[in-house]
Amino acid sequence: MLRLTQLFLRTLRDDPSDAEVPSHRLLVRAGYIRRAAPGGYTWLPLGWRVLRKVEDIVRREMDAMGAQEVHFPALLPRENYEATGRWTEYGDNLFRLVDRKGADYLLGPTHEEMFTLLVKDLYSSYKDLPVSLYQIQTKYRDEARPRAGLLRGREFLMKDSYSFDIDDEGLALSYAQHRDAYERIFQQLGIPYVIVQAMSGAMGGSKSEEFLAPIEVGEDSFVRCTQCTYAANTEAVTAGTIAPDTATYPASSDLPSPNCPTIATLVEYLNTHVPRTDRPWTGADTLKNVLLSLRHPDGTTETLAVGVPGHREVDVKRIEAQLSPAEVTALDDAGFAQHPQLVRGYIGPAMLGTESPSGIRYLLDSSVVPGSAWVTGANTKEVHVINLVHGRDFTADGTIEAVHVEPGDPCPQCNASLEIARGIEIGHVFQLGRKYAQTLGLQVLDQNGKQVTVTMGSYGIGVSRAVASIAEVFHDEKGLKWPRAVAPADVHLVSTGKKDDDITIAAEKLAHELEQAGLEVIFDDRIGVSPGVKFKDAELLGIPTVVVVGKSLAEGTIEVRDRHSGAQENVPVADVVSRVLAVHREGR
Amino acid sequence: MLRLTQLFLRTLRDDPSDAEVPSHRLLVRAGYIRRAAPGGYTWLPLGWRVLRKVEDIVRREMDAMGAQEVHFPALLPRENYEATGRWTEYGDNLFRLVDRKGADYLLGPTHEEMFTLLVKDLYSSYKDLPVSLYQIQTKYRDEARPRAGLLRGREFLMKDSYSFDIDDEGLALSYAQHRDAYERIFQQLGIPYVIVQAMSGAMGGSKSEEFLAPIEVGEDSFVRCTQCTYAANTEAVTAGTIAPDTATYPASSDLPSPNCPTIATLVEYLNTHVPRTDRPWTGADTLKNVLLSLRHPDGTTETLAVGVPGHREVDVKRIEAQLSPAEVTALDDAGFAQHPQLVRGYIGPAMLGTESPSGIRYLLDSSVVPGSAWVTGANTKEVHVINLVHGRDFTADGTIEAVHVEPGDPCPQCNASLEIARGIEIGHVFQLGRKYAQTLGLQVLDQNGKQVTVTMGSYGIGVSRAVASIAEVFHDEKGLKWPRAVAPADVHLVSTGKKDDDITIAAEKLAHELEQAGLEVIFDDRIGVSPGVKFKDAELLGIPTVVVVGKSLAEGTIEVRDRHSGAQENVPVADVVSRVLAVHREGR
Repeated sequence: MLRLTQLFLRTLRDDPSDAEVPSHRLLVRAGYIRRAAPGGYTWLPLGWRVLRKVEDIVRREMDAMGAQEVHFPALLPRENYEATGRWTEYGDNLFRLVDRKGADYLLGPTHEEMFTLLVKDLYSSYKDLPVSLYQIQTKYRDEARPRAGLLRGREFLMKDSYSFDIDDEGLALSYAQHRDAYERIFQQLGIPYVIVQAMSGAMGGSKSEEFLAPIEVGEDSFVRCTQCTYAANTEAVTAGTIAPDTATYPASSDLPSPNCPTIATLVEYLNTHVPRTDRPWTGADTLKNVLLSLRHPDGTTETLAVGVPGHREVDVKRIEAQLSPAEVTALDDAGFAQHPQLVRGYIGPAMLGTESPSGIRYLLDSSVVPGSAWVTGANTKEVHVINLVHGRDFTADGTIEAVHVEPGDPCPQCNASLEIARGIEIGHVFQLGRKYAQTLGLQVLDQNGKQVTVTMGSYGIGVSRAVASIAEVFHDEKGLKWPRAVAPADVHLVSTGKKDDDITIAAEKLAHELEQAGLEVIFDDRIGVSPGVKFKDAELLGIPTVVVVGKSLAEGTIEVRDRHSGAQENVPVADVVSRVLAVHREGR
Repeated sequence: MLRLTQLFLRTLRDDPSDAEVPSHRLLVRAGYIRRAAPGGYTWLPLGWRVLRKVEDIVRREMDAMGAQEVHFPALLPRENYEATGRWTEYGDNLFRLVDRKGADYLLGPTHEEMFTLLVKDLYSSYKDLPVSLYQIQTKYRDEARPRAGLLRGREFLMKDSYSFDIDDEGLALSYAQHRDAYERIFQQLGIPYVIVQAMSGAMGGSKSEEFLAPIEVGEDSFVRCTQCTYAANTEAVTAGTIAPDTATYPASSDLPSPNCPTIATLVEYLNTHVPRTDRPWTGADTLKNVLLSLRHPDGTTETLAVGVPGHREVDVKRIEAQLSPAEVTALDDAGFAQHPQLVRGYIGPAMLGTESPSGIRYLLDSSVVPGSAWVTGANTKEVHVINLVHGRDFTADGTIEAVHVEPGDPCPQCNASLEIARGIEIGHVFQLGRKYAQTLGLQVLDQNGKQVTVTMGSYGIGVSRAVASIAEVFHDEKGLKWPRAVAPADVHLVSTGKKDDDITIAAEKLAHELEQAGLEVIFDDRIGVSPGVKFKDAELLGIPTVVVVGKSLAEGTIEVRDRHSGAQENVPVADVVSRVLAVHREGR
């Protein structure tokens, strides 16, 4: 029994000043967590109970699917991460340190290398496979902007697992098993989720899906088709196959265009001075060339130009995902200064590309299809060029998905409209393939006695982040509303009595009876705290059932409240335990 | 059920080359742990099960005594450890790192500062106290010599708790409760222990006791009185009160003593050239001055001289414990070179002490009592001085317990003989007092509305080290022999059958029945592995009950073996489950 006279808990009236999102605000105010460092939180007794319940659900399902639990150190020697290149690729996101002997170490952000080497160490035959191993472990990432409490920390609890198979069919099966287990886990945790196609990020590999909890405060944005099943992280949306433009266009020509520094002014100028006969010019007829700076993990920088239709915005995050592990930012003035050939506001394809005078790598958004004609910069101040046809008049170094996906964009699967929403990444399943096994030499003998390289999957659930995600889904303005499966207790018993009065005696008795019945009880046994304050605390803490022993005891009843529905009923004293048990067993 | 055809396990025939102690050797060979880094181990599935069972026992007893579980980050900002001086005092033992913003961090070795600040943050009144908080958490220490597998690692699992009381009586009670809980924990884990007086080390504070498992490979040595209850870490042995020497001695005089570079040659010279009338000279009449080098945490070094009776050895570790946090080593040639006044082999008190020409701090072993007379160096080559009386002819800067404690030394409590043994430190209880609360400003209002500083205790159990300690106690030359409370499974079922034969069918059936009966089963279901190899593996893994379905099945019996006693009996097939259950419930 957790008595509030003894529980290490202080609820706060005011929101912490650094809290931007409901889960952060409420978990701190309700005394579940407390900030200990930038991106580092201390779990207080109630929060720790929730975390452990989440962890237990994850563990149970991982065990049920046949994965085996191990546990690696977090402090790891540089060498293995050097072998795969991740020592460098992780860039500033890796916490690095040097021991007393001068040897380099890191704090593990994920453990692909270690799992690969462990399997290599113990296994040698196809008969040993498949195997799936996992750990639930504290991870470290030196996030540039730790934020939103548990949602993006620098030290956090993660379940990471890895599957090892002899062939692609095996990997597909292991992947499907993990994906199913993840569905069961999130269903038990009560977190709504969408499974979306994802980018592979810094990991390498092929098929990859994310489990996103569709919550407005999430850092990820994703698209969903309004008609078919397509869903993807916006970073990972591909435009699908777009047919080339087969129209015939006049020869390109320069167009002096004074006072047209923006797409809007340019379109207006076009419609006024060179109106089209078929329809007015729009921003979609213009090609905007945007200059970016890539920072590679080894510290070198590179200038990159991206060409997109003028009416669309460049999505730096989406570009970054495709150019991982490089970090992408807009080119700043100092960057422009290094390319004096560029005429800002009038940059055109003639001056871009590795073969051009500037030598700047030039990528086109996939919507700039071969054969299409554009109005774009002529690399001269106040001059544009029209009818510049892709493939006829200019080329680039490649294509990229560069534009910000907008609601109404066509679904790459069925062409219907996409809608856009935000979400929190709560899980990630990933067909890594042979990259790590190849680099680290994980081979086994196959049926024919031949050495073959093992193929791997990697799968992650943010365990501490799941706690915050649940809090994001289950709360109202008064406080938290935990699902039963992860609530820190089953019932919150409030006594409004004074010292030694009937109410206090009845509440003490009931507290023991509830505990005897196998329920986890938080008992607000404080004397001298007003009922109003106690009710507020109960709402803030968010235990699913609240039982109040108060005035109605005189009529022989005790109040049973449901934190989720807000319903309350007066139950005869003798029936309270069975009533609470029934509600509890129904899982409401 | 853990099937050996699926369990992620490979037993090894050969001892790992770096394994010095049985627990390390056997835990690696039996596939419980595997080295991942210097002083860092990966827990494989069986080892992880043992660790979690140990952890659960610790948690249960901490909860039962009313301590509340929380969990801090391991990655901590410098600032709080700077406030208490530990950022510096921990010296090279602290893992330090810098984040992407250039801020200093450490990996927590213990969390006194964080717990103190957390209580300061939430509590403000005497009514809130006492409170005991704990965590079970991964700790980091950059040990100079990580060794012996889990016994001294650089990353390890520890339960650390802290008590907070308003006054000394409260602290004494919290301390006693922790001490009692620790006794219950070690009893349940089956680890024999001795509670010994301990030094406070780098922690500051007053009363301190260690729980040592008396095992020969342990790093700690401790004394026990052969008569009374006295027991202490040798570092912490105090000589008790020794009476001053009241005899009268002649005036001191120089004694040319050629060819006496050692105590033995000096004693022989004395007995030959200036024989005593009452008894022969012995080493105990000579005063040996040993030069040491202290390295302070801030990186500065200091030369220290220690005077001990010539027949005793200097115990550098014991001296270090008293001069903590300084590190102590013998003064090397380069160190001597900085003190040209010192005549090596003939160093005497006249040249020592902060007031002497050398300025070297000089401490005397506590057995060099006031009034005692000595033969010692005259600071001239081949000259000694005799009848040099402490207090009359020389003084020092203080006393210290400097000599290596020997079996037969007098007990400081009852003067009977001490005996010496070695042990592994498995727990530590410690009255910290007000040091941290004072430095970090943890005060509460007392009954009279006055701010008073809280007094603290700190208490630790090495959870991963406990696993190794259990293995040190419970093993034989064939393998491990786990106590039931922490065994990774309850029963190890060996089938010696071939594919689809009666033995295999019976073993499959029995495996399910044992599991149905609520037992945790390791099932050696491998086909084509010889019974001999399977028995060897069973002995190595060390599950307390081994059941063998083999040839005797033809006579209707199955063999039940006890890994601890080695006893084996043939049990009728129908009785096996109840027999195993009975043995299991008896806890044998």
